[in-house]
Amino acid sequence: MRLRKDNAALQPPMGWNSWDCFAAGVTEKQLLDNAAGLAQLKSCGWEYVVCDIQWSEPLAASEKNQGVVYRKFAPLTLDAWGRQIPAPNRFPSSADGKGFAPIADKVHAMGLKFGIHIMRGIPRQAVHERLPIFGTNATADEAARPDSICCWNGDMYGVDPASAAGQAYYDSIFQLYADWGVDFVKVDDICHEHLYVDDPYGAAEVEMIRRAIDKVGRPMCLSLSPGPAVIEKAWHLEHYANMWRITDDFWDDWKLLLDMFDRCELWQGHGKPGCWPDCDMLPLGKIGTGFGQPRKTNFTHAEQRTLMTLWCIFRSPLIMGGDLTQLDDWTRSLLTNEKILAAQQTGREPEQMERDEKHAVWTSLTQEGGRYLALFNLDNKTQTVSVSLSDLEFAVHSAEDLWGDTPATLSGSCIQAELPAHGAGMYLLQK
Amino acid sequence: MRLRKDNAALQPPMGWNSWDCFAAGVTEKQLLDNAAGLAQLKSCGWEYVVCDIQWSEPLAASEKNQGVVYRKFAPLTLDAWGRQIPAPNRFPSSADGKGFAPIADKVHAMGLKFGIHIMRGIPRQAVHERLPIFGTNATADEAARPDSICCWNGDMYGVDPASAAGQAYYDSIFQLYADWGVDFVKVDDICHEHLYVDDPYGAAEVEMIRRAIDKVGRPMCLSLSPGPAVIEKAWHLEHYANMWRITDDFWDDWKLLLDMFDRCELWQGHGKPGCWPDCDMLPLGKIGTGFGQPRKTNFTHAEQRTLMTLWCIFRSPLIMGGDLTQLDDWTRSLLTNEKILAAQQTGREPEQMERDEKHAVWTSLTQEGGRYLALFNLDNKTQTVSVSLSDLEFAVHSAEDLWGDTPATLSGSCIQAELPAHGAGMYLLQK
Amino acid sequence: MRLRKDNAALQPPMGWNSWDCFAAGVTEKQLLDNAAGLAQLKSCGWEYVVCDIQWSEPLAASEKNQGVVYRKFAPLTLDAWGRQIPAPNRFPSSADGKGFAPIADKVHAMGLKFGIHIMRGIPRQAVHERLPIFGTNATADEAARPDSICCWNGDMYGVDPASAAGQAYYDSIFQLYADWGVDFVKVDDICHEHLYVDDPYGAAEVEMIRRAIDKVGRPMCLSLSPGPAVIEKAWHLEHYANMWRITDDFWDDWKLLLDMFDRCELWQGHGKPGCWPDCDMLPLGKIGTGFGQPRKTNFTHAEQRTLMTLWCIFRSPLIMGGDLTQLDDWTRSLLTNEKILAAQQTGREPEQMERDEKHAVWTSLTQEGGRYLALFNLDNKTQTVSVSLSDLEFAVHSAEDLWGDTPATLSGSCIQAELPAHGAGMYLLQK
Amino acid sequence: MRLRKDNAALQPPMGWNSWDCFAAGVTEKQLLDNAAGLAQLKSCGWEYVVCDIQWSEPLAASEKNQGVVYRKFAPLTLDAWGRQIPAPNRFPSSADGKGFAPIADKVHAMGLKFGIHIMRGIPRQAVHERLPIFGTNATADEAARPDSICCWNGDMYGVDPASAAGQAYYDSIFQLYADWGVDFVKVDDICHEHLYVDDPYGAAEVEMIRRAIDKVGRPMCLSLSPGPAVIEKAWHLEHYANMWRITDDFWDDWKLLLDMFDRCELWQGHGKPGCWPDCDMLPLGKIGTGFGQPRKTNFTHAEQRTLMTLWCIFRSPLIMGGDLTQLDDWTRSLLTNEKILAAQQTGREPEQMERDEKHAVWTSLTQEGGRYLALFNLDNKTQTVSVSLSDLEFAVHSAEDLWGDTPATLSGSCIQAELPAHGAGMYLLQK
Repeated sequence: MRLRKDNAALQPPMGWNSWDCFAAGVTEKQLLDNAAGLAQLKSCGWEYVVCDIQWSEPLAASEKNQGVVYRKFAPLTLDAWGRQIPAPNRFPSSADGKGFAPIADKVHAMGLKFGIHIMRGIPRQAVHERLPIFGTNATADEAARPDSICCWNGDMYGVDPASAAGQAYYDSIFQLYADWGVDFVKVDDICHEHLYVDDPYGAAEVEMIRRAIDKVGRPMCLSLSPGPAVIEKAWHLEHYANMWRITDDFWDDWKLLLDMFDRCELWQGHGKPGCWPDCDMLPLGKIGTGFGQPRKTNFTHAEQRTLMTLWCIFRSPLIMGGDLTQLDDWTRSLLTNEKILAAQQTGREPEQMERDEKHAVWTSLTQEGGRYLALFNLDNKTQTVSVSLSDLEFAVHSAEDLWGDTPATLSGSCIQAELPAHGAGMYLLQK
Repeated sequence: MRLRKDNAALQPPMGWNSWDCFAAGVTEKQLLDNAAGLAQLKSCGWEYVVCDIQWSEPLAASEKNQGVVYRKFAPLTLDAWGRQIPAPNRFPSSADGKGFAPIADKVHAMGLKFGIHIMRGIPRQAVHERLPIFGTNATADEAARPDSICCWNGDMYGVDPASAAGQAYYDSIFQLYADWGVDFVKVDDICHEHLYVDDPYGAAEVEMIRRAIDKVGRPMCLSLSPGPAVIEKAWHLEHYANMWRITDDFWDDWKLLLDMFDRCELWQGHGKPGCWPDCDMLPLGKIGTGFGQPRKTNFTHAEQRTLMTLWCIFRSPLIMGGDLTQLDDWTRSLLTNEKILAAQQTGREPEQMERDEKHAVWTSLTQEGGRYLALFNLDNKTQTVSVSLSDLEFAVHSAEDLWGDTPATLSGSCIQAELPAHGAGMYLLQK
Repeated sequence: MRLRKDNAALQPPMGWNSWDCFAAGVTEKQLLDNAAGLAQLKSCGWEYVVCDIQWSEPLAASEKNQGVVYRKFAPLTLDAWGRQIPAPNRFPSSADGKGFAPIADKVHAMGLKFGIHIMRGIPRQAVHERLPIFGTNATADEAARPDSICCWNGDMYGVDPASAAGQAYYDSIFQLYADWGVDFVKVDDICHEHLYVDDPYGAAEVEMIRRAIDKVGRPMCLSLSPGPAVIEKAWHLEHYANMWRITDDFWDDWKLLLDMFDRCELWQGHGKPGCWPDCDMLPLGKIGTGFGQPRKTNFTHAEQRTLMTLWCIFRSPLIMGGDLTQLDDWTRSLLTNEKILAAQQTGREPEQMERDEKHAVWTSLTQEGGRYLALFNLDNKTQTVSVSLSDLEFAVHSAEDLWGDTPATLSGSCIQAELPAHGAGMYLLQK
Repeated sequence: MRLRKDNAALQPPMGWNSWDCFAAGVTEKQLLDNAAGLAQLKSCGWEYVVCDIQWSEPLAASEKNQGVVYRKFAPLTLDAWGRQIPAPNRFPSSADGKGFAPIADKVHAMGLKFGIHIMRGIPRQAVHERLPIFGTNATADEAARPDSICCWNGDMYGVDPASAAGQAYYDSIFQLYADWGVDFVKVDDICHEHLYVDDPYGAAEVEMIRRAIDKVGRPMCLSLSPGPAVIEKAWHLEHYANMWRITDDFWDDWKLLLDMFDRCELWQGHGKPGCWPDCDMLPLGKIGTGFGQPRKTNFTHAEQRTLMTLWCIFRSPLIMGGDLTQLDDWTRSLLTNEKILAAQQTGREPEQMERDEKHAVWTSLTQEGGRYLALFNLDNKTQTVSVSLSDLEFAVHSAEDLWGDTPATLSGSCIQAELPAHGAGMYLLQK
């Protein structure tokens, strides 16, 4: 049953996340500097500032250490009730029990919203120390499942849905997040086709989390990771979450971008107000200051156009990954093309018209009765991509070039554009 | 891309099919007698009369012969172009090349529509005899794929989507069906998760068939079997077909009915005008005159209520399987409850509210802003099924009992009804 | 590469194990009483006394507690180096750091050998307390893998084969076992087709354990559980282990016994000196004093004959599960038929001759050039099981009835016996 | 049950097969010319001359025609009983009903043995023409299964094991082959992990074929293809066949050769007199006259050594694929190194000692109590491969270099050799 959801994410969210730049080691300063960068894009709809994984680990690295991201059995910063709190060496304003509240306040003061990442579950450290659960007589071990772990990070045990202690624990952390002023929670290790032998998707924990959020009463956008989500659970995701990853981590590699056409094909028709299949963050501009070698994105300009065009016509959330303090003009132009972003915010019924190894075509409806049309050149060389519009049952008389430099020509019921290798064009069709 | 579809099946189809009574051996008389029976139910929305499998096989049995339904390598009745035509010994009016036209005419004269079953593919017999394909210089062997067969019926080879001869063959048979006056085509062996190693769903043949129908220009409802369809191809089914089976053959067995709750859970949200996930035929009343022992349905009255309630709130097509010439009052009451049928024809956004091993609850919206609510007792004994309506965000003040003998009581935000083992209640909620 | 193995288990082991009677909660007295029982059967080859799981858990139950066998995050009895030692409340002689040595001594004094059960891995308790590893500067957390757990028991983390600390830990426990005088180690959670997503069989830990045993230099039979082992790793099992389960836990249920014919079919040809596919323990006589309701085995007499016949002709290890302090005459007769046991100890090249749903036939060679023949009635009623011996290329002139009351008759190249439902006959064929 | 097998293939077979050179289109002349070539190698053990697929197809090509090897629904040359006979345009001596007898006679006169390839099943052409089955009143359609086909060749239907006609058909063709003087039959489309949904291995047809061969009474080596065979059916293969492919088609590509180490690891321990896991043909020397571009093998000299060393120590059958009429000195040296071939003909208990991504080591026992040792460099550059021999429990005092130019040095219990990229050394160890 669709729970309250409090009207969160009625349109696909737009924001920034710390992972692509700073991996597990982002600091308060980096977070706030990027928030300031996002504030400058606010008029285009950019809104959420999200602090990604391991903010309670004092020694978490923004760079891989001997090939691993996470320290084995690393001590986390916990409060007396086993709840993770920001490591004060990395987030100085969190000292004295203030948690993320000071940072959230500053983000709100910029007119933005604040989000955090958490791992599904309860800290193993709290479990083996048998810490009390806030507001109960239970201890953390009662809430935990010894057999429910994450395969790639050893911090947590899964929470037992059969235990009252489990729901109480989730209630206690979401109350804390609400007290801090959190608007967005990215829950990780909960949504992946291969992670759990018995349950590829953590349905029971998703339901506990949804209940905890609805009890708290503060609107919080619930985002699930890591993906790919399983299509068999689309109905459940739509009932309980606001966005969910349809892909594993996305990086600046053409193979991954090409693969996203498969995933968008699969998930078309599942986006609707409050519910957004998520293509993952945008590795654009300067990335990898921390994770991988610092670099400008490996995507070509044409590929970046393809990325933005696909995310927007499909209506994926847009969560920028690049460093907003070092934004170049080209990247800024991608993030501020309001005609393109309008398709993401307001388009209806996006649908793949055709696709083969060489090209793809997507379309959606505008609010005013027009059509968006996206043409993609998936080939490794420049080609003219052409499509018959007769199936649209819509007499096209004009095709506005929304990117501005890839014009299309209409002839009969056909539209065509010359597109560079891996490039895209996007058009607004009118009668 | 969504092809024309000609506005077929804007509401979930209702009709009768010969399989549950007559298996592979239905005759012209049986077909027309049942059409006459359906005509009497027409005011409730019942419309399609469908002749199921093997109408071109002169010796096809309505009973299993030594454990098999289909004769191995049975000679079929073909025209000069390798197209199956009705076996004249079973369908006398088809003689002299008239095909199904005389029967279609009679069905149309009753105010009903006429449908037929076909197997995906081209007759092996036509292939090995190298018969010509209508309107071409090609022969049947050019259209066929030697490696594409059905696992449970040996009549056909799959059609090669890479061959022009293949599309020409499909065009030729759908032109013939249009000439006969066919309104509904059930294509079998095309939609099943386990049938084909490389392609669990015959996407390429579905596309050829869609094109053939759209070329012909006669509205024909395209129904795909045998099921279960694969959810990964939901988008494709929605683009190309009007209904598709979400289950293997359904019979009068509680286990299969219970299992349908899984399938409806999975496919909720996928029904829309022109596109209907299909729970298969209704094995109600007198069935198995041919297939299996002749019997009254093995379902209890309570189970029959559950069946009708689930099919209707989910908005499955309703295709009656029982013999309409022997309709008893109870069964007639199930097929003519217009308040229940209204949910199937006009409900919106059906959704499973909750389900566990003991009970299930579904809801949908009425056209007028009310709510349909279906309560199911999945347990083996009478129990009170109760549900909180607070999540509906809809202040319920009355609950009309649509079946008329399973009243519900409202108290606070809760509604409850005492239901027999395996039974159901259905209610219209108003503010 | 086949490691030393020290000539352990040159013939398939015979013994007793505490699990079927006492589950996780066996005590010193129960163990020694059963050892005394086994000593009385020693002349027939019975030899190993094995203490099963959770001997370090002071509160481990011999009965399921609220549906679970194992207490969640239960504190274990560990020495200063994180090694499990017997809980002294259950094994009083182990006090003062003596461990299992006093019990092993008593068992040896009876002319028997002593075995223990362990779980793959290192105690989570030692890891989170960062206990030192014996003889090293490393701590337990360095040896552990946070992502390697058992699905059904939460005591341990898997050991990291890439860490020197891991091998040191295994070395340290096997040295302890050798010091105690252990002759047999049943390693659990290491050999099962479904347990681990990435590694259905814990090859790396098996290799670490083999190395630890060979370093220690005391012959110890290495037995792997829980099973079913994967046939793709047969070669590895044969190199590193002495016996491995080819089945999940076996209990007194005909379905499980029937299923064992599948598994023996699959694993035929893989038994050889030092290497024995293992059909699991014999739930005969009085079982379940602890696990499940105490009961006499649910197997009929005929089924018990089938069990013993199959295990013996296949050459499975024979590990009695029933309570040896309450041995009735019938059960004793099964365990002391030396002609039957000779097939298990000395038969060669056991092979399934034929099998269908109604019957099975196995044969093997005697040391002296004769043949063992086992006839099985898998049907639910008495029937005559008959087999042609012409394929044996062995002119049979006599068939000794080894059970003594199911005679077979020879006629031409055919042999036949009337066998009760689910029953078996076993014969020694001579020229 | 192991059937007669008539002592065929007591040692792993050695011979030549037409596929690698001539694909589906070999001619009588090509066959006999290569037989003459093989006769010159006879003293080294080379024996079988095998005519591969589609000898009954008059127009079968030795080159791919528009990307396909096999013509769709091609008419085959059949006798009056639906049995394939050689196409006389390709095999002139077969005219007048003589079949392969004249060729077999010539091959026998060279002191060699003669083999043919067949597809599992009965020709579809015979089935649809309802041809009689030799010696029965049945027709071909009665023997065939409409649902049993090959995925890559459309000639045949599978044979129904439940029909007497089916066994009669197989009896009739093996009698014909015996009459011709056939010594070896390679049965294709019968042994592959992915070919059949319900039955990955055609056990029932293998049994019918075994029975047919044993009835005929002429020793014929039964070879099964295409592979990879499934390890779960190892026991069945060992009972019924003489050799079976453990790989799909093998060609001159390092990836395939590297992959063979996986397969040999899996199948070690399964070779024994009459039963040989088969690594497929040797694509050495001049190949692809027909299939693919004619070429000298793409393998480097080092890779060819690795191939021969692995096949020989593992004891795979050796079936040369290259053109024996164009044998160069290097290739001849590989086929005539009698010390290496002795390992294949007489080695015992071959076993993989160790393997990782960089190297592999195999060993086996000689008849005289020595050891064979094979060292493999799997890396892309020259390296020294070293192995400790302590686990051999065999005091090595000399290591004869069997290839003659890759000497090894002994020091302590260690042996090592410098080997080129992808190369191998093979040694005879003596005390």
